Amino acid sequence: MGAKHSLPRSFMSYRKAVRAELRKVIDSCPSVLGSMLRYHMGWQDEQGHLCNRESGKFIRSTLCLLSCEAVGGNVSQVIPAAAAIELIHNFSLIHDDIEDASYERHHRPTVWKLWGQSQAINAGDAMFTLAYLALLRLKEKGIADEKITNCAEMLSLACLELCEGQYLDVEYEDRLAAKKTAALFAVSTCLGAYLGSEDSKLVDFFHLFGRELGMVFQIHDDILGIWGAEDTVGKSAGDICQRKKTLPVAYGLQNSEGAARKSLGKLYSQKSIRGEAIKEVAKILDKLGARNYAESVAEQYYYGALAHLRATRLDTSSVAPLEEAASFLSKHDF
Amino acid sequence: MGAKHSLPRSFMSYRKAVRAELRKVIDSCPSVLGSMLRYHMGWQDEQGHLCNRESGKFIRSTLCLLSCEAVGGNVSQVIPAAAAIELIHNFSLIHDDIEDASYERHHRPTVWKLWGQSQAINAGDAMFTLAYLALLRLKEKGIADEKITNCAEMLSLACLELCEGQYLDVEYEDRLAAKKTAALFAVSTCLGAYLGSEDSKLVDFFHLFGRELGMVFQIHDDILGIWGAEDTVGKSAGDICQRKKTLPVAYGLQNSEGAARKSLGKLYSQKSIRGEAIKEVAKILDKLGARNYAESVAEQYYYGALAHLRATRLDTSSVAPLEEAASFLSKHDF
Repeated sequence: MGAKHSLPRSFMSYRKAVRAELRKVIDSCPSVLGSMLRYHMGWQDEQGHLCNRESGKFIRSTLCLLSCEAVGGNVSQVIPAAAAIELIHNFSLIHDDIEDASYERHHRPTVWKLWGQSQAINAGDAMFTLAYLALLRLKEKGIADEKITNCAEMLSLACLELCEGQYLDVEYEDRLAAKKTAALFAVSTCLGAYLGSEDSKLVDFFHLFGRELGMVFQIHDDILGIWGAEDTVGKSAGDICQRKKTLPVAYGLQNSEGAARKSLGKLYSQKSIRGEAIKEVAKILDKLGARNYAESVAEQYYYGALAHLRATRLDTSSVAPLEEAASFLSKHDF
Repeated sequence: MGAKHSLPRSFMSYRKAVRAELRKVIDSCPSVLGSMLRYHMGWQDEQGHLCNRESGKFIRSTLCLLSCEAVGGNVSQVIPAAAAIELIHNFSLIHDDIEDASYERHHRPTVWKLWGQSQAINAGDAMFTLAYLALLRLKEKGIADEKITNCAEMLSLACLELCEGQYLDVEYEDRLAAKKTAALFAVSTCLGAYLGSEDSKLVDFFHLFGRELGMVFQIHDDILGIWGAEDTVGKSAGDICQRKKTLPVAYGLQNSEGAARKSLGKLYSQKSIRGEAIKEVAKILDKLGARNYAESVAEQYYYGALAHLRATRLDTSSVAPLEEAASFLSKHDF
């Protein structure tokens, strides 16, 4: 996979604690459903044997914990919320894979491919439930019930946005496929700050920071989804294949004339786009300036995100790990 | 539909309040997903026009409110929990219909049949999320945060049982398809008692009462699913058609020999059972005493449920509406 940019150290430092919490929660799930979830996480193979195929980068949970740390909170108290966010993210991946009919995720068969659609729906539902059970474990960490119910509300509202984003994604109506990502990033940074601080203004800034950072991450991901394969990244061009109207594509369709418009329109009226046609789409979009456009939009969100972080007026040293994370996520190559 | 037994009055009296609460919560769901949910509830048709096709009997939410009333609680405070339970029940129906490939529910096309599997998964996920948002509305009713987090935990544990039950249902492994129903009935009566009382022993009795009553209801439903069509009830024999191993079927398969065993085994090794074969299955099972057996098991649970209710030592007049409900649910014909 030859990553040019490796994960910042802060991501490594929290990963272990979040994973341990996730394991505890997922192990509370009954027999076969639990196995399906552990398979999805990359902790066991389809026969149930232990393996080490974890591919999740725990981005959202790490952002949650970094946000808590930045406001001076006690990170170890907040692990259950970070785990809850990771469970929501993964429940949505299991259901999305069914909806997109994706056969593989990170070079392994998807849950529905192995256990069938029905059981994958059930496994996703179980993981969704576990997210709430994870969140409620904040109690054992000494978090007040009032804070926990508020966290549950924030998380639920983000889930509703996630469902709406997924609805738009399936309808191909979405002009900016970033809604889902932004919603979950926003609640990640927001919950971290809320659990670590009593200052509601601060929490608002973290919410906005997360939301804009989510936009950056998703738009960058959309760019990788089209042009990543040209570099040596190995990103499959699944977004083109599935005709997702990501930002560069929406720009291309709106800002093309003559031959380019005709070609694009024809390609995007097919049921799926395959083989050489994928490269052709990438080439046409590049010529139309779609890549430059998407990069500039991502950049605007990036500076917006940083501005919200600075508006918190926290010490430079407190927000440094979050700035490092933001910089990394704006140019990730996985 | 010519119901022989109509709903007890108590069901009617609470229905309006629960429906109003459900409407409020469902209307908070974004555009098209919200429409899908309102369609499922029977409040609008597939074009989005208002209609009156509500078929849900609000059994679980009514049991919750009756339990609250029985322990002397303030029913109006508990409506959000009742709505949450109804939302969980309906989310699971939307996903179950996809998994069972059911085209119709109460003589209307199912959500997935109209909007496709993917969007039905999303609609179910949204309804699941709304259940938690509904529950959190207990706060506005003056319920303490500690009680709310405890309710959220009870509800989540019931959801996990529901997922496990659905997993078994799809696998045809379930000897007693009642697991799902019992889990949700149990949390219904349990939450009602918990929110209406401080006495934890009382709450335990209500939990057990709900669980056993759920078994009664489901086994009775399984009997209707096989022999209901013979009476004038109009219950489709979908359970046989889908080869569900409900209690009477499991009994029949275990307790048959010779020709009966051979016929049953042959019928249940087909992909689906149709037409005359359905009547044949019902006839064989009846001869084997499967109906009598299932009825006697249901009766045992029924008396078990009543015993738990009496163990609460509440006034006869306090538990009378619940006893009436239990009696009705043990011989319902819908």
